[in-house]
Amino acid sequence: MCEPLPKERTIELRKKHIGPSCKVFFAKDPIKIVQAKGQYMFDERGERYLDCINNVAHVGHSHPEVTKAAVKQMELLNTNSRFLHDNLVQYAERLTSTLPEKLSVCYFVNSGSEANDLALRLARQCTGHEDVITLDSAYHGHVTSLIDISPYKFLQLGKEAKKDYVHVAPSPDIYRGKYREDHPDPGAAYAKEVYDIIMEVQQKNRKIAAFIAESMQSCGGQIIPPPGYFQKVAEYVHEAGGVFIADEVQVGFGRVGSHFWSFQLQGEDFVPDIVTMGKPIGNGHPMSCVVTTKEIAEAFGASGLEYFNTFGGNPVSCAIGMAVMDIIEKEGLRGNAVRVGNYLVELLNELKEKHELIGDIRGAGLFVGVDLVKDRQLRTPATAEAQHIIYKLKERRILLSADGPHRNVLKFKPPMCFTKEDAKTVVDAIDEFLTVLEAAAGNKSKMVTQGSKGIKRQENGESCSDISVEGEKTWSDQPKENVNNRQGSVCRQGRGFSSEKHSTKRIRT
Amino acid sequence: MCEPLPKERTIELRKKHIGPSCKVFFAKDPIKIVQAKGQYMFDERGERYLDCINNVAHVGHSHPEVTKAAVKQMELLNTNSRFLHDNLVQYAERLTSTLPEKLSVCYFVNSGSEANDLALRLARQCTGHEDVITLDSAYHGHVTSLIDISPYKFLQLGKEAKKDYVHVAPSPDIYRGKYREDHPDPGAAYAKEVYDIIMEVQQKNRKIAAFIAESMQSCGGQIIPPPGYFQKVAEYVHEAGGVFIADEVQVGFGRVGSHFWSFQLQGEDFVPDIVTMGKPIGNGHPMSCVVTTKEIAEAFGASGLEYFNTFGGNPVSCAIGMAVMDIIEKEGLRGNAVRVGNYLVELLNELKEKHELIGDIRGAGLFVGVDLVKDRQLRTPATAEAQHIIYKLKERRILLSADGPHRNVLKFKPPMCFTKEDAKTVVDAIDEFLTVLEAAAGNKSKMVTQGSKGIKRQENGESCSDISVEGEKTWSDQPKENVNNRQGSVCRQGRGFSSEKHSTKRIRT
Repeated sequence: MCEPLPKERTIELRKKHIGPSCKVFFAKDPIKIVQAKGQYMFDERGERYLDCINNVAHVGHSHPEVTKAAVKQMELLNTNSRFLHDNLVQYAERLTSTLPEKLSVCYFVNSGSEANDLALRLARQCTGHEDVITLDSAYHGHVTSLIDISPYKFLQLGKEAKKDYVHVAPSPDIYRGKYREDHPDPGAAYAKEVYDIIMEVQQKNRKIAAFIAESMQSCGGQIIPPPGYFQKVAEYVHEAGGVFIADEVQVGFGRVGSHFWSFQLQGEDFVPDIVTMGKPIGNGHPMSCVVTTKEIAEAFGASGLEYFNTFGGNPVSCAIGMAVMDIIEKEGLRGNAVRVGNYLVELLNELKEKHELIGDIRGAGLFVGVDLVKDRQLRTPATAEAQHIIYKLKERRILLSADGPHRNVLKFKPPMCFTKEDAKTVVDAIDEFLTVLEAAAGNKSKMVTQGSKGIKRQENGESCSDISVEGEKTWSDQPKENVNNRQGSVCRQGRGFSSEKHSTKRIRT
Repeated sequence: MCEPLPKERTIELRKKHIGPSCKVFFAKDPIKIVQAKGQYMFDERGERYLDCINNVAHVGHSHPEVTKAAVKQMELLNTNSRFLHDNLVQYAERLTSTLPEKLSVCYFVNSGSEANDLALRLARQCTGHEDVITLDSAYHGHVTSLIDISPYKFLQLGKEAKKDYVHVAPSPDIYRGKYREDHPDPGAAYAKEVYDIIMEVQQKNRKIAAFIAESMQSCGGQIIPPPGYFQKVAEYVHEAGGVFIADEVQVGFGRVGSHFWSFQLQGEDFVPDIVTMGKPIGNGHPMSCVVTTKEIAEAFGASGLEYFNTFGGNPVSCAIGMAVMDIIEKEGLRGNAVRVGNYLVELLNELKEKHELIGDIRGAGLFVGVDLVKDRQLRTPATAEAQHIIYKLKERRILLSADGPHRNVLKFKPPMCFTKEDAKTVVDAIDEFLTVLEAAAGNKSKMVTQGSKGIKRQENGESCSDISVEGEKTWSDQPKENVNNRQGSVCRQGRGFSSEKHSTKRIRT
């Protein structure tokens, strides 16, 4: 490429040539990253950032074995899958070997969005049905068909943006949802909600093609479905003639440590009909995959319509994918995810003893969420506090994000080479910021209350930005009484909060 | 990767693990390619194939400068566009510098399909309209929203597969369409067809969001729109409040030689509102781009909905894209496209003097189509003959394909380093096969006529395959009387045709 640009010039050119809908982290003072290694990123001044959020750089940023595999294959051949190639079939064999036996047929595509779109096409073709059940707060991708089934997105356009063929079930969130940890069987209760939707849909003479859910909801707030939920849902969906799509785009490839795929946390008696993959699959290389059963693949083929994806399954992508699998195994990254993930949760639990702001800690392996609350009993989301912590961490050169429908869940999904020391570093920093926040909160609770109404939310990330929430938008009829609406306000309170003005715009990570 | 597999094992694993909708070239005897360089590909026995079809390997297979750029960046950093990076903005600047000034804003995505889907989203958001006008035989991608606007695809599912918001205009084909080369102004006449559709749509109280067309139709039969067509269409579409999307996925990046973008062939007074890119952009690396105006980008941003593409615009993809631009320039590939393209057309015109089977030769730079006909006056598509030639060329280790609604158009779109010698090689071989075909045709015209009815077409590429036409499916009311329906039959005639049994399945290249 050309000579390095001064940061201001980079920003100027970005404003000129990149669509304004494409947001940067920390819009007020964005970070220019020029290099990365393992779990660390470096800015143009050589400052090191600890990366706690990048689940794409799965085996670590700039892993030399990934580069080596790419170069070796690029020097030889990169072409489409209309020619036979060993990489394609050997990689497909390797990938399916991690899955239950019936999931044996692959379609290689270029992104999680392409994967989920194809999953819908497979579901519709094999069932002959159209309707889709999705979860509240779900995000499944950026193409038209997926915006339609992503309440995380379409609800920002207003309730009328929901298409008739889309049905939104409550997120199986046992901390904040309709059925909680004190329910005798929240899995069955949440599944019953899906059942009720199916009944309602069928009464309208509509038919369910698919139920789609992330195996653990990521943007939805690091939600781990309660035991038995997927089994029951699959039973109801199958009875209705539909299929179960497990979206592993964010959470697959051993992130949970104990298993290679997050849906496997539900037990061996649950097998989805379609699994979609993405982000970590190529450690940043644009690739992804849909895996399904022979029966569904054959039904899809029966339409006579060919499926061709120009780049999907090319030998370079497959070589990279294979290298990622090798590294996960050779470096024992699943074991690391268990060890470091457990240690992180342990440290966070200690923090919970000290800080009333921590309402819930949930996680599996290196997928961990910390649900911040203003009040442990009402579980009022502490949105501004979460955003404040993210900003303070950035100043400390630690990259973390907050997500979920209330933007109050601190979200850990670091590269899988994350260490115990890294975990300690970030938890210590959070400890410090929570202490300051809580001390300040005592002094100014009145001010905060006064400031909670009548403040216009920032939508464009400009003045009080970079992060401003588009507002509380939940679909299903969860109890709302314990959810207040103070996002975007607290950052104006001066004391106890980051000196950098910011609000709470939805930035997905 | 692992040890090389015997070809039979590769085929076996492919059958087991790759969706049956993903077709290979020459299904009966597919080619296993293990290496490629420039315009040549090599199979597992080291046999060299001349590649006349791969417009993805734009600057030549395995170009060392592309690999070098990839490695250099992979060693440093590959992350998402939420961080500032010079590669993103410098590449965007470089790319937009090749376009008319008003096309200044980029969205980087991973495939032509993602690009066209995003183009539709931009169009719908900025116009507030929904309907789309597309061309007969058009193919714009494999995601749900694009199958819907691709008659090349959805018509295979039956006429009822057309969605209400989709309107199909005749392809501006002056050789085989409604208005031909003898029409005083075919551009205006075809544009008038679009105008009529707009009127009809508006009478139904529907509104046009976009007209979308490849700047030159590729799968549609190597169609070069007549002068003035795009200008007029743009005028009508703008009057209706819609936008013009030029799909350059197949034909961009200097393939036509005289210009960097194929839509520029229409003259400087035509500027589309949105341009989509794909295939050649990264010489095989999965990447693509949508470029539009500031106004459309701002209207898209105004919804408040963020656009994030995990892999799109990452520093590695941008470095590769920049390398491709550099190579096109340094190696003078546009000049080469003009010289070799002109020479190829010259040779083909000489062939046309000799062979009645050649009905039309059309092209620009290294995008050339040879329309084979059974009868020059009626212009009856010589589908089986075209397929036969493709097969014979394969035996001669030359890769060419036949496309268009009748699968009778020999389609040249080789890597841009294609030489005059390569052109001579393939034209000489075509000459030889046409001679044999024509000699045989004299002997067996009766047999062919008898064989033309009642033969079941192969849909699954198994018995008389690999290439079997799904049938004559055209949308617009082009005159049909000169189109017969003999595909899939002639290959059974033994004499004069390839000894390898084959029919004419639609395989897009």
